[in-house]
Amino acid sequence: MVAPAVGLLTDLYELTMASSYLQLGANDTAVFSLFARKLPANRRMLIACGIEEALRRLEAFRFDTDAIEYLRSTDRFRPADLDYFARVRFTGDVWAVPEGAVVFENEPILEVRAPMIEAQLVETLLLNAVHYATAVASKGARCVAASNGRPVVEFGLRRTPGLEAGLIAARATYLVGFESTSNVLAGYVYELPVSGTVAHSFIEAFDTEADAFRAVGQTTRGRVTLLVDTYDTLHGVRSAIASMRDLRASGRRVSAIRLDSGDLDALSRASRALLDAAGFGDVRIYASGGLDEMAIDRLVSAKAPIDAYGVGTRLAMASDAPVLDMAYKIVEYAGQPCLKLSDGKSTLAFPKQVWRRLGEDGQYAEDILGLRGEPPPTGAFHPLLERVVLRGERCAPVLSLAEQRAQHAAEIARFQHYRSIEGRDKYPVGISDALMTAHRRAVASVRRREGLLRNGIRLEHSPPG
Amino acid sequence: MVAPAVGLLTDLYELTMASSYLQLGANDTAVFSLFARKLPANRRMLIACGIEEALRRLEAFRFDTDAIEYLRSTDRFRPADLDYFARVRFTGDVWAVPEGAVVFENEPILEVRAPMIEAQLVETLLLNAVHYATAVASKGARCVAASNGRPVVEFGLRRTPGLEAGLIAARATYLVGFESTSNVLAGYVYELPVSGTVAHSFIEAFDTEADAFRAVGQTTRGRVTLLVDTYDTLHGVRSAIASMRDLRASGRRVSAIRLDSGDLDALSRASRALLDAAGFGDVRIYASGGLDEMAIDRLVSAKAPIDAYGVGTRLAMASDAPVLDMAYKIVEYAGQPCLKLSDGKSTLAFPKQVWRRLGEDGQYAEDILGLRGEPPPTGAFHPLLERVVLRGERCAPVLSLAEQRAQHAAEIARFQHYRSIEGRDKYPVGISDALMTAHRRAVASVRRREGLLRNGIRLEHSPPG
Repeated sequence: MVAPAVGLLTDLYELTMASSYLQLGANDTAVFSLFARKLPANRRMLIACGIEEALRRLEAFRFDTDAIEYLRSTDRFRPADLDYFARVRFTGDVWAVPEGAVVFENEPILEVRAPMIEAQLVETLLLNAVHYATAVASKGARCVAASNGRPVVEFGLRRTPGLEAGLIAARATYLVGFESTSNVLAGYVYELPVSGTVAHSFIEAFDTEADAFRAVGQTTRGRVTLLVDTYDTLHGVRSAIASMRDLRASGRRVSAIRLDSGDLDALSRASRALLDAAGFGDVRIYASGGLDEMAIDRLVSAKAPIDAYGVGTRLAMASDAPVLDMAYKIVEYAGQPCLKLSDGKSTLAFPKQVWRRLGEDGQYAEDILGLRGEPPPTGAFHPLLERVVLRGERCAPVLSLAEQRAQHAAEIARFQHYRSIEGRDKYPVGISDALMTAHRRAVASVRRREGLLRNGIRLEHSPPG
Repeated sequence: MVAPAVGLLTDLYELTMASSYLQLGANDTAVFSLFARKLPANRRMLIACGIEEALRRLEAFRFDTDAIEYLRSTDRFRPADLDYFARVRFTGDVWAVPEGAVVFENEPILEVRAPMIEAQLVETLLLNAVHYATAVASKGARCVAASNGRPVVEFGLRRTPGLEAGLIAARATYLVGFESTSNVLAGYVYELPVSGTVAHSFIEAFDTEADAFRAVGQTTRGRVTLLVDTYDTLHGVRSAIASMRDLRASGRRVSAIRLDSGDLDALSRASRALLDAAGFGDVRIYASGGLDEMAIDRLVSAKAPIDAYGVGTRLAMASDAPVLDMAYKIVEYAGQPCLKLSDGKSTLAFPKQVWRRLGEDGQYAEDILGLRGEPPPTGAFHPLLERVVLRGERCAPVLSLAEQRAQHAAEIARFQHYRSIEGRDKYPVGISDALMTAHRRAVASVRRREGLLRNGIRLEHSPPG
């Protein structure tokens, strides 16, 4: 979902910095790295997502006439700045991990190499594309892991931050293995499977719950699910059973009942017993209602007889970890390393590559974060980042969502030990000797900087007075 | 921001229920109420927001040709359903509180009265419009309260869930009193004041921090703010002071320094002392870096010499309360009350009005939730909900954002006791005798329902077999 004027999808300071750089004639090549500084307490991995959208935004990046006129009206820019904005396109290179890749802290999700001004101007639109999608995909992947093979359905749209976020969430959760979404617009836009049952309001509009159930059965095309918790769940199950008998008499079959509140473990067992005793052993139980991966994990561990899960609100806002400490930081300018030493926000200098080692058991064993240019470490390592944009043009095949989904499934199956909800072991991520040595040298450089001239922008070369 | 095909901005079950109702010929008038069932633990009030967007979506509500073709392709709908979708518009009435109103649990933010199918079809798009905007406005209002008159700036765009959410957040925070936003697109779309400083990358690209500061001073139009924490904050302040002297010599003035990490209380005091000692008593201190209302409140309470606050990430995801327990529930169908008794999710039947009483001290004293039709309670009460849409058309004046902002400011000033971050007193919200009595009667009715015929849809009147 690209904005009509994607250039304005930015923080003002990106534009004022561009003006400063233009005035200084300072527009050497810069490399920026987009990564998570730290994982949230309850995440052991992140699922990188939103990269495809980020790349689409780079392709669409421009300021249209209205945007230029708006910027002129702010009285913050020189005519030369506005001329630059009117012409600017993204002409740089991008390295990225695959959509749906497993990443850990400090590992670049993408790196941009471009003239400083372009690389800086796209900061906000890139972070904005990747942050939320990754937060939702990461939580979604945990729901899939917790459900342990049972279908999981996404229905967060009513509480996503706008319709665009609803599309992002539906796509991200499908990518990580959800079965379907309730979001019809996402079904349309991304060709996702859509599914749904009925709302409580439907039940409440009928004289009796049993009437409502019969109506659902008589009027629904495709699989019929009866929502049984409007007034009292087990009473609802009994009414559902009575309705199933009536429906069976007219040749219609109910696929499932849905529990949406209360003690889902106890209620699913009691419901299962009632259904089985009534000869409806083939009617499945679908559970929802404030669920997340922790709740699903508890239900699955307790062997609650639940056949499928619906997850909505908590996914829509990635509610236990809504914010990832994700940043887009300069790591090189004019061939020289850049870094930040701020309290708790220091960054590793230099363009990077992530090397991932497959163990002999077919599971990933470790990652090594290295300089992009250094030779691969010895062993069964493969690189995670690939060049996907060269001089502003896509230069790698664009996979379909189905292909990305299959690729994610294959990848995450090799992190079996680190997927579980309860586990605490940290996946090992090392830093190569070459990166560590070079970074330390860069830090020392900065610390000595008052006496030091790096090959950065020198003010004496700059025009303004 | 209205979708091109706003009809598809929905959960599938809204459409399948519509099909069921059409098959049953059941489309009597329904009333649905949109409200928060409970406030999050750390909210004592909510700021209703997104109502304007919700109403725009109702006006734009339709299924275009592509949408109809997509629905046809799902094979879930009869030709008669598709004909209905192609023709449907929202023709009902809406009552709503003002954009920016203070609301409490169970108080309707809006109520829809429309033929059942229409009222049901718009559920998802209404909740989607109001949920996030209200979550962000509510947190934003707390930031404004905590800052106690000091300007607060919003810059969450890079971590909002998509660009639409960035627009929503910028608008919502301006509504509740933020001074400006970094979001240029929001500045353009909503005519909001925009502001910004520079990024750490700018500092890092220069040979020395002092060079970078001089460059900022020389190239920035408007107020100049120096970001001092890239390497070491107090060292940065000293460099800033040196640069300010150079800049002053060339007739340029620095307005502020910005602290973005570390112990902001201690660093602001030390920075203030350094600035004052150097004769820069007029240079202000701007603080940011993972701030929220709790952090601002601590800094203000400690009398940290900070003149303005920037809030981003935590606001973008309303991170301490990302999810509001907000629902859109049927309260009446065909003139009969509807309610839900599910565990922890029971609802009050009947269309409602909220009556708010102004005390003699000019502060609000209590709310009373009543039946919409009942006479006002005795005393200085005024009604909160107003009819804003009549038979599908806006019937109340549409205020500008500036007017809504002023109205919000006047309203929240009358909740002085309940605005503070630390306070725990709950604002009193009562239920009128008439509503309580009627609701209890409706509950008893439902409980007796197996023997009861309410005037709901009766299956025997329905066509399918």
